[in-house]
Amino acid sequence: MKILVINAGSSSLKFTLFDMQGTENTVIANGLVERVGTDKPNLIFKRPDGFKFAECPQGVKNHADGLKAVCAKLVDPEIGVLKSLSEVSAIGHRVLHGGEKITAPVKVDAAVKDIIRECIPLGPLHNPANLSGIEACEEIFPGVPNVAVFDTQFHQTMPPEAYLYAIPMDFYKKYGIRKYGFHGTSHHFVTLSTAKFLGKAPEDTTIITCHLGNGCSMAAVKNGKVIDTTMGLTPLEGLMMGTRSGDMDPAAVIRMIQVGNTPERVDTILNKESGLYAIGGIKSGDMRDISNAAEEGSKDAQLALKMFIRRIVKYVGSYFVLLGGADAIVFTGGIGEHSAPQRKAILDGIAALGIKCDDARNEACNGDAGIISTDDSAFKAIVMPTNEELMIALFTVKTLKLA
Amino acid sequence: MKILVINAGSSSLKFTLFDMQGTENTVIANGLVERVGTDKPNLIFKRPDGFKFAECPQGVKNHADGLKAVCAKLVDPEIGVLKSLSEVSAIGHRVLHGGEKITAPVKVDAAVKDIIRECIPLGPLHNPANLSGIEACEEIFPGVPNVAVFDTQFHQTMPPEAYLYAIPMDFYKKYGIRKYGFHGTSHHFVTLSTAKFLGKAPEDTTIITCHLGNGCSMAAVKNGKVIDTTMGLTPLEGLMMGTRSGDMDPAAVIRMIQVGNTPERVDTILNKESGLYAIGGIKSGDMRDISNAAEEGSKDAQLALKMFIRRIVKYVGSYFVLLGGADAIVFTGGIGEHSAPQRKAILDGIAALGIKCDDARNEACNGDAGIISTDDSAFKAIVMPTNEELMIALFTVKTLKLA
Repeated sequence: MKILVINAGSSSLKFTLFDMQGTENTVIANGLVERVGTDKPNLIFKRPDGFKFAECPQGVKNHADGLKAVCAKLVDPEIGVLKSLSEVSAIGHRVLHGGEKITAPVKVDAAVKDIIRECIPLGPLHNPANLSGIEACEEIFPGVPNVAVFDTQFHQTMPPEAYLYAIPMDFYKKYGIRKYGFHGTSHHFVTLSTAKFLGKAPEDTTIITCHLGNGCSMAAVKNGKVIDTTMGLTPLEGLMMGTRSGDMDPAAVIRMIQVGNTPERVDTILNKESGLYAIGGIKSGDMRDISNAAEEGSKDAQLALKMFIRRIVKYVGSYFVLLGGADAIVFTGGIGEHSAPQRKAILDGIAALGIKCDDARNEACNGDAGIISTDDSAFKAIVMPTNEELMIALFTVKTLKLA
Repeated sequence: MKILVINAGSSSLKFTLFDMQGTENTVIANGLVERVGTDKPNLIFKRPDGFKFAECPQGVKNHADGLKAVCAKLVDPEIGVLKSLSEVSAIGHRVLHGGEKITAPVKVDAAVKDIIRECIPLGPLHNPANLSGIEACEEIFPGVPNVAVFDTQFHQTMPPEAYLYAIPMDFYKKYGIRKYGFHGTSHHFVTLSTAKFLGKAPEDTTIITCHLGNGCSMAAVKNGKVIDTTMGLTPLEGLMMGTRSGDMDPAAVIRMIQVGNTPERVDTILNKESGLYAIGGIKSGDMRDISNAAEEGSKDAQLALKMFIRRIVKYVGSYFVLLGGADAIVFTGGIGEHSAPQRKAILDGIAALGIKCDDARNEACNGDAGIISTDDSAFKAIVMPTNEELMIALFTVKTLKLA
């Protein structure tokens, strides 16, 4: 059974084609179209055997054009992986924002599209693109069911005292201003994988999940359900990230405006010119660059790392207490899976909770699942690779009861 | 030796006159002038023997006029407590913002007044009033030394990774946008009192101080020095308060503007119409009212309490981990000293750290110093009354080497 997973961004369309075979789920092709809507779009098509193909397709005005170019490659007699598009049983879509109405993956119909549309004010860049990706599939794969998987849905179990801001209730009731949380598909995948890894049922699994990539977020997961998370109304809140500020005094935002910036400009600064990029002194928000610069002695890069680690450490303390203790702290995402020095710094920072980094295990763990704490630690530190595309494919199969 | 302590606000002037006698420091009169600059000012003058006098003095155009009215009462043959104003040896002033240059109380001279003036952009309501209070004293008490004690100074030991926001460094370098912290005089007083209570030197004392009043803040104090605190550039950041929001997604501030409010209006909403007031459903930001309404079954008030407690619990977790463990969590301020149910809720919330509320001790503790945790707790919970006026008087004596 072939499942196509689509992640449509404001100017890109990413795809992954899975062959779902019982417990073996294999990627048979993936890639993306970049710069959709410009006169220089770029298509990249890859197969797991290492084959890679790139071209600049003609006239990619929108997501539908981009998807058509992708489909042409999927069924191309020479480089393709399908005889016919009819082999695709279903399509799963990553959608950013489902507001409060969406608490699980859903088969797309007119009502679901209305919800995605209603949530555009909450996800002004992503939701229109996500919708356009769905409509492209409806056009090109008529009759094939689409499933929407939302970045916010896993966090919808938070209680009101976690998701409300302490501001007049009208802002919540009229404009939906509350904490939603993001990266939900990753936190969910990692929660299920960690439960399996620990030999537990998800509903018996209490963990702190740390998705540390270019975007960074954490979740407090109690008995398999999120009770708190660091991202908020938008992905800006919480941890320091590649180019995002994370937490700050709300009044500092107002001060940034008062010294001569428009609110829109401040929004851009906080999302695209802050975080590691702003502090590290090397015009890069990439942890690998910052980490290298710090090792070479850059004081700015060292400071950026200290700030990055400190905020994670603080949230681990918060969540450990909120959860009433935890089975494990779980690292995932590009930094979480591959950056042993940052994992060690975090574990050293939370030593007061009775956990200790096993340096040999930590160094050995690079992209694979594994325990990196010492055996005598009070709870475990685990590295667990995330796979949002696979999670979307699995949700698609489950939602449509295809298996 | 008589020390006068002055707290000049934008439309008020509070005073406390101390008789400093070795280890006994007695209040001999206190009170305030309200509505300075209006046509209906109000003067309240109190003595510790219970005598209380109120009047509407004529023509109080500014702080100097207000102070003159106070002084007339201090030396009034019938109700006063001094024979002559010359008995006042020195005057201590509460000043809100000292920026980065002030790390300890200072004798006021032209340079200090310049610093208070430079910091007006950081404390636009308070610093001009504080300066005006100092200048009133210079006029009315010529030759008597003035000492400035800053709300920010105790927090100046925070490392850069604690006080910097992850935003472009120009905002820090040009406009001083960073975390400063407030309530410093209270956190400092309580740190010294707790050290004494525990029989330790301050430099051996590691505690989490919770100042919970109408404004609320916490500090992580390691070996007597602050390493982190909840308030930030302004007193808005951190905990939920009577009318302040505390932490929220910085992007939510921008969204509140985008739905049709000016930045100034949002600032007012977040500082004066948020917090317990916004959530509790009874148009009150007073914890006693909220607590009563919650007991009477108001769901809104119960939610407000849950939110209030949850944020404190989260910061206790953060600070416990940052400090590498603590000798004690210390409660002070109106709520911290008098609200046993809130203290119990906080201690129940942080049970994962190995601490437990002793209900009998907690109920018995109402405004006095005492331990409220069980003997088998991993660290102590302590109630410790604050006294900012006394701290300012003590600092004044120490700074001027009067004793």
